[in-house]
Amino acid sequence: MTISGELFIGEERVSTEESFRAVNTTLAQCIEPAFSTAAATHAAAACELAWSAFDRFRNLDAGLRAGFLEAIAAQILAVGDELLIRAQAESGLASARLTGERARTVGQLRMFADELRRSDWEGVRIDPAIPDRQPVPRPDLRLRRIPVGPVAVFGASNFPLAFSVAGGDTAAALAAGCPVVVKGHPAHPGTGELVAQAIIAAARETNMPNGVFSLLNGRDNALGGALVANSRIKAVAFTGSRAAGLALTKIANARAEPIPVYAEMSSVNPVLLLPTALSDGAKRLGREYVASLTLGVGQFCTNPGLVLAQEGAGLDCFIAAAIGALARVAPGVMLTPGIHRAYQQGVERVARSPGVSLLARGADSDVVHGGRAALFATSAAAFLSNAEIGGEVFGPASMVVRCAGEAELLRVLEQIEGQLTVTLHMTDSDLDLAARLLPVLERKAGRLVVNGWPTGVEVSPAMVHGGPFPATTDGRSSSVGTIAMERFLRPVCYQGFPDVLLPKSLRTR
Amino acid sequence: MTISGELFIGEERVSTEESFRAVNTTLAQCIEPAFSTAAATHAAAACELAWSAFDRFRNLDAGLRAGFLEAIAAQILAVGDELLIRAQAESGLASARLTGERARTVGQLRMFADELRRSDWEGVRIDPAIPDRQPVPRPDLRLRRIPVGPVAVFGASNFPLAFSVAGGDTAAALAAGCPVVVKGHPAHPGTGELVAQAIIAAARETNMPNGVFSLLNGRDNALGGALVANSRIKAVAFTGSRAAGLALTKIANARAEPIPVYAEMSSVNPVLLLPTALSDGAKRLGREYVASLTLGVGQFCTNPGLVLAQEGAGLDCFIAAAIGALARVAPGVMLTPGIHRAYQQGVERVARSPGVSLLARGADSDVVHGGRAALFATSAAAFLSNAEIGGEVFGPASMVVRCAGEAELLRVLEQIEGQLTVTLHMTDSDLDLAARLLPVLERKAGRLVVNGWPTGVEVSPAMVHGGPFPATTDGRSSSVGTIAMERFLRPVCYQGFPDVLLPKSLRTR
Repeated sequence: MTISGELFIGEERVSTEESFRAVNTTLAQCIEPAFSTAAATHAAAACELAWSAFDRFRNLDAGLRAGFLEAIAAQILAVGDELLIRAQAESGLASARLTGERARTVGQLRMFADELRRSDWEGVRIDPAIPDRQPVPRPDLRLRRIPVGPVAVFGASNFPLAFSVAGGDTAAALAAGCPVVVKGHPAHPGTGELVAQAIIAAARETNMPNGVFSLLNGRDNALGGALVANSRIKAVAFTGSRAAGLALTKIANARAEPIPVYAEMSSVNPVLLLPTALSDGAKRLGREYVASLTLGVGQFCTNPGLVLAQEGAGLDCFIAAAIGALARVAPGVMLTPGIHRAYQQGVERVARSPGVSLLARGADSDVVHGGRAALFATSAAAFLSNAEIGGEVFGPASMVVRCAGEAELLRVLEQIEGQLTVTLHMTDSDLDLAARLLPVLERKAGRLVVNGWPTGVEVSPAMVHGGPFPATTDGRSSSVGTIAMERFLRPVCYQGFPDVLLPKSLRTR
Repeated sequence: MTISGELFIGEERVSTEESFRAVNTTLAQCIEPAFSTAAATHAAAACELAWSAFDRFRNLDAGLRAGFLEAIAAQILAVGDELLIRAQAESGLASARLTGERARTVGQLRMFADELRRSDWEGVRIDPAIPDRQPVPRPDLRLRRIPVGPVAVFGASNFPLAFSVAGGDTAAALAAGCPVVVKGHPAHPGTGELVAQAIIAAARETNMPNGVFSLLNGRDNALGGALVANSRIKAVAFTGSRAAGLALTKIANARAEPIPVYAEMSSVNPVLLLPTALSDGAKRLGREYVASLTLGVGQFCTNPGLVLAQEGAGLDCFIAAAIGALARVAPGVMLTPGIHRAYQQGVERVARSPGVSLLARGADSDVVHGGRAALFATSAAAFLSNAEIGGEVFGPASMVVRCAGEAELLRVLEQIEGQLTVTLHMTDSDLDLAARLLPVLERKAGRLVVNGWPTGVEVSPAMVHGGPFPATTDGRSSSVGTIAMERFLRPVCYQGFPDVLLPKSLRTR
């Protein structure tokens, strides 16, 4: 496949004067070709086309939309190794990781296709008429959920396949019946274009209306702002920094018609080491922790950035094991020079914070843009007096908070902001303590993990990848799993309709 | 029961220096007693108490919460005629209407109790572990929905029972497991206190934690603002004006932790008269329309404030019948002097709009604060050129828009803002046209009614009382029916939990 550097406004390819190139972070050099930069007029054209496709797209039999999603999966696989090679050049991620990520991407699309073929995604409810009810008859009432309208999807840097152009948000929105306008992440435009070509080919193959998908590129915040402000866009899905997520939310709230923004922003994913778990397996836990922390150079939303435990010999042993493991982890190349720079600055900022001590750094090497792990410790008192200590540093950096006892642990937990996950390491002997902590943990996170690690997000019906603000802008939602589709649906009630005028899924016959 | 005029901060009664009195709108005179006005400190105390009750309340067996809701229903009925008499004095609503509204209020509470006794309100999903899955095992994942936290409920003036202190929002929030702090509507504080006493008695009787319910009164916007801004409040439910709803939303969005506001604000509930329906039954439709328009002096969110039809003999006949019927409707007393004033000003404003003609007024009388019906007409061209013509005038005022044909009807429909309802009058001969209009109608409203009238909102599982902005601030939700509970729930995933630590509803054994 040729990478043209063009924008895709529906099936139309557009090139512009202004352009940018991707960077091979590993080699610290630009990669060809040049990518056209979308202007506000391109955003408007893509949104208008998405709107024009909306009614036809949403009224297609769900089985046809399922076929479209499956065709996208097949077309992505058909791109072959070229996709993985380009993604590796643009992201620095290892080939094995990208192969797994492609499988996840294809799996997500197929999962939503399966979901569409089941009948219950519309949430149908039927209250039959009761003509002889007193004092007034009850009319026939039938409810289904319909899609909200075109969705603007912002690709994430850390999942160039699974949370980008044809990632989880795009799959969920298309499944719901919403046309999608993607703002591609500028770190991986070539990967994005290859995937866009796969989507366009799948749309043609399955006879989808033109405009069901567009891809716009650009490095300027104005492009994203123009998309979110466009009156044809009815919801936004975003994964990235808190600053960017909040900026988009502000634009969405200021519209004549405000719209929901599902922004997944930041999380430090606290890990609680309960006393018996620590005394039974501190060394193993220390090693596992470092493996989770440094997986993918720490560039996961669910990276364990905070450890809470009661001080004592068990915690000392855990820390010693972690330091030992950390020394053996060579720094991997980070996703982009910008992320690498922000990581270094973040580590320096934390190291300077009052009451924080640097316990260890990971192994050093001369890899360009390498993210060298960093392990910090602080006291509960210092943590409680400075909320910034617990903030996210995107990358393999983590903080151990030593607590004096249960009461202090609870105070620290209560201060922590909303999270994607909280993890508990425990044995049966810790059960009573775990039960006392649980009500707090439930209020803090979207997913609670026992005796595992937060990295590794299963794509399945019971998954929740979300959580209270500021982990996300909408704690009632999840961006992973079948439940992610609900973000793009709203209920409509049909009262007293003749059967023939009802949508098929609501008909009696 | 004595009406004390006190605030209820949980079970504690508080009186303050500053006070106000209710007004008997019919007699245009104040009613005793004086009602204490809550200050910011009272709002803070109520929110803190709600927070302290939250974990215990939400972790009660759902059956116990169901018992609480049923006890509230029983206690409200036990207040007896005194409640109806006070509500009539404070609202001007007729006794029969209030008797029906009380039945609805009690019915709503019992409906949520029934819902709680079913297992599926938590939305449980279970993905069992697959230990031997390659390349990595699948962990055990279990999802349920938990309540978001304390909810601030703003009572509505037009339903002193069914959408006020123990109305639909309170019932839905309590059912979900959220403590409630009610900001009572200052138009009916005595009614509010009688209901609050019933709730407090029910909470004691069923041993609910103190703080599960509070009632604050005041006439100042600052009180509502303080509630919405309080960090212990995690969601807001509101029914009222667009200005007030948007003001509260702005406060909620500006919080350190933004929270969802479910504001039901304004709707003109368009009624479409399709050609054959008009030619077959114009006279009957005209009479039915006026009955719906003037029901409850037009003070319903679902009042038919806009009629769209193709011009011609059928429409002329409909209008003539409506004018005739209108002349026989005596003006009823409106809810408050303020609403009466706003209605009169609204009618005058519409009458002065370019291109609008006043077709008829309802019968006149010297009833104090009487809402005299008003019927207007305009052309599609005038309507399209001035969006304000279609705005809500709360009360028995309505506008007929004459359209030249289907294309113009569609243009008018596309311009209309989000609505709670859209109604179609049609016969089998109108089916093709109705099918062409349906995609637009679905995008515009939460409930579509065929051959009925929008007033009369069934409380049942398939009901949607919501709709796209500005009908509500969150078109993904409904404030009536069992689905209303979903507004106050969020999903949590439990990964790898030992059975004994899981919430009961998620346990295997």
